Amino acid sequence: MTDHYLAAATEIIARCRALAVHSEEQGYLTRTFLSEPMRSTHITVREWMEQAGMNVRIDHAGNIRGCYGGTESGRRLLIIGSHLDSVPHAGIFDGALGVVLAIGLLQILDGRRFRFPIEVIGFSEEEGVRFGVPFIGSRALIGELDGALLARQDPQGITVSDAIRHFGLDPSRVEEAAISQDKPRYLEFHIEQGPVLDSLGLPLGVVEAIVGQSRLDLQFTGQANHAGTTPMNLRHDALAGAAEWIAVVEREAAAVDDLVATVGRADVKPGAGNVIPGFVSVSLDVRHPSDTARHDCVKRLTQKADQIAARRGLTISMESRLDQPAVKMDAGFTNQLAGAVERCDYPVKRMNSGAGHDAMIMARRMPSAMLFLRSPRGISHHPDESVLAEDVAAALAAGLFFLEDLERHDD
Amino acid sequence: MTDHYLAAATEIIARCRALAVHSEEQGYLTRTFLSEPMRSTHITVREWMEQAGMNVRIDHAGNIRGCYGGTESGRRLLIIGSHLDSVPHAGIFDGALGVVLAIGLLQILDGRRFRFPIEVIGFSEEEGVRFGVPFIGSRALIGELDGALLARQDPQGITVSDAIRHFGLDPSRVEEAAISQDKPRYLEFHIEQGPVLDSLGLPLGVVEAIVGQSRLDLQFTGQANHAGTTPMNLRHDALAGAAEWIAVVEREAAAVDDLVATVGRADVKPGAGNVIPGFVSVSLDVRHPSDTARHDCVKRLTQKADQIAARRGLTISMESRLDQPAVKMDAGFTNQLAGAVERCDYPVKRMNSGAGHDAMIMARRMPSAMLFLRSPRGISHHPDESVLAEDVAAALAAGLFFLEDLERHDD
Repeated sequence: MTDHYLAAATEIIARCRALAVHSEEQGYLTRTFLSEPMRSTHITVREWMEQAGMNVRIDHAGNIRGCYGGTESGRRLLIIGSHLDSVPHAGIFDGALGVVLAIGLLQILDGRRFRFPIEVIGFSEEEGVRFGVPFIGSRALIGELDGALLARQDPQGITVSDAIRHFGLDPSRVEEAAISQDKPRYLEFHIEQGPVLDSLGLPLGVVEAIVGQSRLDLQFTGQANHAGTTPMNLRHDALAGAAEWIAVVEREAAAVDDLVATVGRADVKPGAGNVIPGFVSVSLDVRHPSDTARHDCVKRLTQKADQIAARRGLTISMESRLDQPAVKMDAGFTNQLAGAVERCDYPVKRMNSGAGHDAMIMARRMPSAMLFLRSPRGISHHPDESVLAEDVAAALAAGLFFLEDLERHDD
Repeated sequence: MTDHYLAAATEIIARCRALAVHSEEQGYLTRTFLSEPMRSTHITVREWMEQAGMNVRIDHAGNIRGCYGGTESGRRLLIIGSHLDSVPHAGIFDGALGVVLAIGLLQILDGRRFRFPIEVIGFSEEEGVRFGVPFIGSRALIGELDGALLARQDPQGITVSDAIRHFGLDPSRVEEAAISQDKPRYLEFHIEQGPVLDSLGLPLGVVEAIVGQSRLDLQFTGQANHAGTTPMNLRHDALAGAAEWIAVVEREAAAVDDLVATVGRADVKPGAGNVIPGFVSVSLDVRHPSDTARHDCVKRLTQKADQIAARRGLTISMESRLDQPAVKMDAGFTNQLAGAVERCDYPVKRMNSGAGHDAMIMARRMPSAMLFLRSPRGISHHPDESVLAEDVAAALAAGLFFLEDLERHDD
């Protein structure tokens, strides 16, 4: 890796830090859909895009878009994007790094153009914080920002349309944000937000799929009773039943490759130290790149919950809250990305994304690929979130190989 | 069993129902220490006591006391008591039945006197609701209602002394409530408040000990993390650890005779469905008639928690909140009670009380015995709490045999 890339990487990290001051909360990064700090974010990002030779516009869904023209007309557009909004008390690299890195990548070209055009996009919304629905920005790109979503209100009763209007944009023109070019392609750089690359000592990972997700709520109902006067054999302890099942969830997930299953919430009632719990409500979150494997797992876990409840004289109820299919990245496009990583002399780690990303939405309409950068200690959605300059440099190097490979093989 | 006893039992149940109207809350029985409804309760109880031939007084701790003199002076006093206060939204038999049943027992005597005197006591306080400390009434009887307790405040800032004064009594004279007679003895009738007698189909149980109790709080601390991006083998899931331990608590308790162990509370943080729990706080309640067995159990469970935490890369902290020794009923006195039950042709079920009772306090100063009446479905501290007329009749019959046995063998 050359000093050139490392210097660029250091600048990219400094830029992420600079963007983080545009926040709704002092001392923390919190930047939701079209909030005031997004305006100043756009001013800064626009400047960097223009420095890198892009023509910049803000579309009516609030996405900032820099066009880096190609040398031949009729060539397929390459979109490189990520999001500029954040969760509350966020880390400064989630989303922003992908945008700033894309700009830095074009900056390294130092004016050099490919035959195909490139568009760098900073999406206005991915996290779903303000309106409870994620991906407002990328939905607009694929023409799926519909009336129902525009009418959705934030906790202050402001609709998505209102927010767009307050920002100086025109909600009646969001469809103009949709990609009109023929056969576009999408690439996203993003921090892993998990510990896998860090645990393997690798800077980069190539995403093969964004896992599908099931969310369920389960309620174990037994009988609340006196903790002193009720012998063990006459109890119907809802928490003891739930605990047995939580252990099953953990064992089941550990036994299936690539499966993660989590009980993140457990509400115990009445919740007094001297009363046997009569009611426990728990959440279940199951994710896997194969929808079949995921559905099979959910089925086994709910059957097991039924069995545990029946044996203990508990009743059980379950509701499915989410059944979101896995999204595969484009195989050919992903192979090209893996080849670029290989040319940088890094081992290619093919992996799944356990979290949702804009690439998940974009993949509905175009071949998409994603490159993960190592998250030190796996920390994300937290002010301690970080990224290593050497990993950003590696991503730049791989990105450049990728662009050159596209240039060579572009149809 | 004669119709005579059944008629008396029906009257006793009707009287419990009549007392329940003296409540702080309409539609529910809630009657705390020296609240206004306790005044009207006393008026009614005094009337019944006088009808049964007792001389009645209210002592300065608010206990109502009916003296049923003996035919010979110098004989040992027998106290029969229970409490007249209640928990919020109480059942109508917890405490009150023991007082009303004692009065009914003397009423059955129809003026007949024994050589020894009897004093029926309706204790002013057992539940600990108003001042957070239980047994105010019985503590006064054994001379342990001290200045610290008198100065204790309820949530409105009213002290025990104030409450006594507002009720028209004199807190400076509470020591006059202490039993002055030589070698008194104590008997208590009480509903079981648990399911044991009901599950055995028995009306009565003879209490051998009130179990000792340990209460602890344990905190499992792991690492909160993304439920999608953190593989199972890189997790430090505090809830998975706590659940494994809750299963151990249940197994351990089931394996040791007479042991009950309960995790009644579990607080999970951050408590979101898509976040691996980083922190779980749980309560542990362990009870056993042998203090050694109880301490051994607590030791094994805390060691096991340490092991589970260490294996999972969690940290653990524990605090002991209560270590209350078991209280044995008097062996000889209890045998006499068991003999009386046997004479009624009931199998003698010797059992432990998993809950605290006034007998626990009285046993510090005098031989004490307790007779449990079956609690249908084990329900207590709830408006559905009930008692069967046939069981009250059985208790009356056993009580009369017991009194006659005392008369024969009284030293």
